[in-house]
Amino acid sequence: MTDPRPLIEPRTLKGFRDHLPAQALARERILDTARRVYRSYGFAPIDTPALEYLEILTGKGSEETDKQLYRFQDHGGRDVGLRFDLTVPFARFCAQHIGGLGVPFKRYHMAPVWRGENTQRGRYREFMQCDFDTIGTTSPVADLETVLVVHDLLSAIGIGGFTIRINDRRVLAGVLAECGVADRSTQVLRALDKLGKATPEQVAAELEGHGVTAVVREKLLGMAQLAGEPAAVLAALDGLVGDSDTGREGVAALRALLDGVGQAGVPAGRVIVDPSIARGLDYYTGVVLESFLDELPALGSICSGGRYDNLAGLYTKQSLPGVGASLGIDRLLAGLEELGRLELLETPAEVFLVHFDEEHLGDYLRIAATLRAAGMAVEFYPEARRVGQQLKVAAKKGFRVALVIGSDEFAAGTAQVKDMAAGTSSTVDWHGDLRVLADAVHSQLEAIKSHG
Amino acid sequence: MTDPRPLIEPRTLKGFRDHLPAQALARERILDTARRVYRSYGFAPIDTPALEYLEILTGKGSEETDKQLYRFQDHGGRDVGLRFDLTVPFARFCAQHIGGLGVPFKRYHMAPVWRGENTQRGRYREFMQCDFDTIGTTSPVADLETVLVVHDLLSAIGIGGFTIRINDRRVLAGVLAECGVADRSTQVLRALDKLGKATPEQVAAELEGHGVTAVVREKLLGMAQLAGEPAAVLAALDGLVGDSDTGREGVAALRALLDGVGQAGVPAGRVIVDPSIARGLDYYTGVVLESFLDELPALGSICSGGRYDNLAGLYTKQSLPGVGASLGIDRLLAGLEELGRLELLETPAEVFLVHFDEEHLGDYLRIAATLRAAGMAVEFYPEARRVGQQLKVAAKKGFRVALVIGSDEFAAGTAQVKDMAAGTSSTVDWHGDLRVLADAVHSQLEAIKSHG
Repeated sequence: MTDPRPLIEPRTLKGFRDHLPAQALARERILDTARRVYRSYGFAPIDTPALEYLEILTGKGSEETDKQLYRFQDHGGRDVGLRFDLTVPFARFCAQHIGGLGVPFKRYHMAPVWRGENTQRGRYREFMQCDFDTIGTTSPVADLETVLVVHDLLSAIGIGGFTIRINDRRVLAGVLAECGVADRSTQVLRALDKLGKATPEQVAAELEGHGVTAVVREKLLGMAQLAGEPAAVLAALDGLVGDSDTGREGVAALRALLDGVGQAGVPAGRVIVDPSIARGLDYYTGVVLESFLDELPALGSICSGGRYDNLAGLYTKQSLPGVGASLGIDRLLAGLEELGRLELLETPAEVFLVHFDEEHLGDYLRIAATLRAAGMAVEFYPEARRVGQQLKVAAKKGFRVALVIGSDEFAAGTAQVKDMAAGTSSTVDWHGDLRVLADAVHSQLEAIKSHG
Repeated sequence: MTDPRPLIEPRTLKGFRDHLPAQALARERILDTARRVYRSYGFAPIDTPALEYLEILTGKGSEETDKQLYRFQDHGGRDVGLRFDLTVPFARFCAQHIGGLGVPFKRYHMAPVWRGENTQRGRYREFMQCDFDTIGTTSPVADLETVLVVHDLLSAIGIGGFTIRINDRRVLAGVLAECGVADRSTQVLRALDKLGKATPEQVAAELEGHGVTAVVREKLLGMAQLAGEPAAVLAALDGLVGDSDTGREGVAALRALLDGVGQAGVPAGRVIVDPSIARGLDYYTGVVLESFLDELPALGSICSGGRYDNLAGLYTKQSLPGVGASLGIDRLLAGLEELGRLELLETPAEVFLVHFDEEHLGDYLRIAATLRAAGMAVEFYPEARRVGQQLKVAAKKGFRVALVIGSDEFAAGTAQVKDMAAGTSSTVDWHGDLRVLADAVHSQLEAIKSHG
């Protein structure tokens, strides 16, 4: 019986995408790592609804996010919207629950967000955010820990060399005050933030447009371009902040942060002071940080964050200072793919068990169960197709080894273990002892992984 | 400076909820387990957008899901909706991608779905689904593997005793044909499905309303109430399906399934044949299964599924038969909480490192880093508050041990390791050797976990 209706075209919305196994596996690997590192510092997971009252979301966002908001009326006539980041829902969450949870409160949140962005810029309208924050303490230890988490996370993901660039908004405020342009700080910071994308000359022209004198322009551009040994950069900043108390506080905080990072065992050079980092017009008030792949700095920051004075001021009178950062997982995945550092496998399993005939089904089931109990992931091909065809599937999907046991092998108590990458094969004598077989396959897997 | 605007009331929408750390941790633990078990059989993750073209979603759903759909027009004037399950998006996904992926295709998908349900029934409007399916094969091995995955999953989660109840829609079809009521199969199955909630008398009355004779009513109710040894139930079904080819196929499939489950090492009694299982009006055509907690059967099935003839007929002419199941994680969590089997901790970390004074900050950082490198999750309290206050926080959050090292301890090269549950404390001599300290804390943690 044929359905009389015409077929519906299977397609996703513009700016949205499916994640096929290879991409989904790569993303899960990074999310797993983030979860493990966040947890290793005592950050606990939370989750919030995808849909919020519209007033919660429009209260906080910028004009741009307001415009990009997916909003509608629900069945009860309520104005609702899909969250566009994880920070606004977290602010609402804290205003509601922090009394019961207590401070300091450390949470991570990994979830999708939605923005009706212009897709011509290569942006997606649904993407994942991976935030962690420490709320309710102004302790510099929380700032330090934020940098350490970012370091441990990027090290654990395995992305090659990377650099965490830190600054402090108080340093910028101090320098701007010393230069007499504190009244134009938004415009000045916005101009300085363009360095890298724009030339120093273009930035100077923009500053001039805001009435910044030539002497001050030179000073500001000099500051933003400071680089090199952290101790030297900090000494230069000491001079630039002059007598500004705020500026001195900022430089002292950076100095303490670098000391702490070294004491915790972070290799020298991984964390550097970069006075050009301002984090745009964000709400940061203390330390700010960005992180870059050494092999692909043009990708932009893959993990950014900083300290802010008050998270949830729109929803509660309780002051909730905090510090945190966010891993840009989609950007990182794009970067790793560009660098050829992304292993794209279509299977999460390592062992492919070839299916010869129904007669030995019970044996195959016992073999697969034994290997799984020994911690290996095993796919048993569901149909007794030609062996060559099964091995082709196994090769395409990226299995490490194929286990070939036909009637002859069962009779002889042997098994062929094929190294799928090398194309080589070796014989295992297991004499019907499943544990011996499991041990042998496990050893071969370990050997293959240590070579690969 | 005070914001002049009035505070926005922090609240979630009706039917939506925040997950606080204790709940989020419990959920992550189960999701982790599901991921591990699904992967151990070679199922690969996929993801699809939360938003789909409305025609994709309304094409497939029932009238009820159509009514509950969150739908709106996006910025481009497109009619869109939030997915209400993971099956419809998967059907669309397969129609689009299966050519490149190849069959058999094994995927899992764990993601939230949204339904504007009546919240008075205690239902949530946002909940998580955890599906796995094998597409593109009619092999009974895929059916068998589905049952094995459910078994391994429920065993690994640690929920106490459970029973997987299996049936085959072909058995039901055969019995209905033999009884001459195949023309009313929808009404008959709907009535039989109420057994358990309704009495046999109520079900019989409903069947009578559909013109089912007394003899046939007795036969159908007898079938639906068959219980006991699988072999005996199967023998009874042999009689009930009579000469129906479909019915005989179904009984033979159940027999083979039970054999395979036993060969794979599943303890007897874990999987039983229950001819009352019909999975309502779902699209299943072969094996169907439901799973119940032995201590709380009234909770309903926590993991259900079955075989279907064609997944994506609305979107493609390619026939895609499949088999799969779905873990009802929210229901399971509710059940485990009711049974007192849910360990609700507010922290994912095991070790709480007390912060005495700033003077030893470097030491604390090195200790925490060493313990983390040894695989332990360590929270270092960010402020040097009173020790009693810090330990109170550690106890409330559920840390296993607190590590107390003040100036005296540093001077003596010792540390106090407090067992937070037992309230006892022991002294470790580590003589400034961080590895010795890490080993000692690790051993204590292992000892505590093996007792608890």
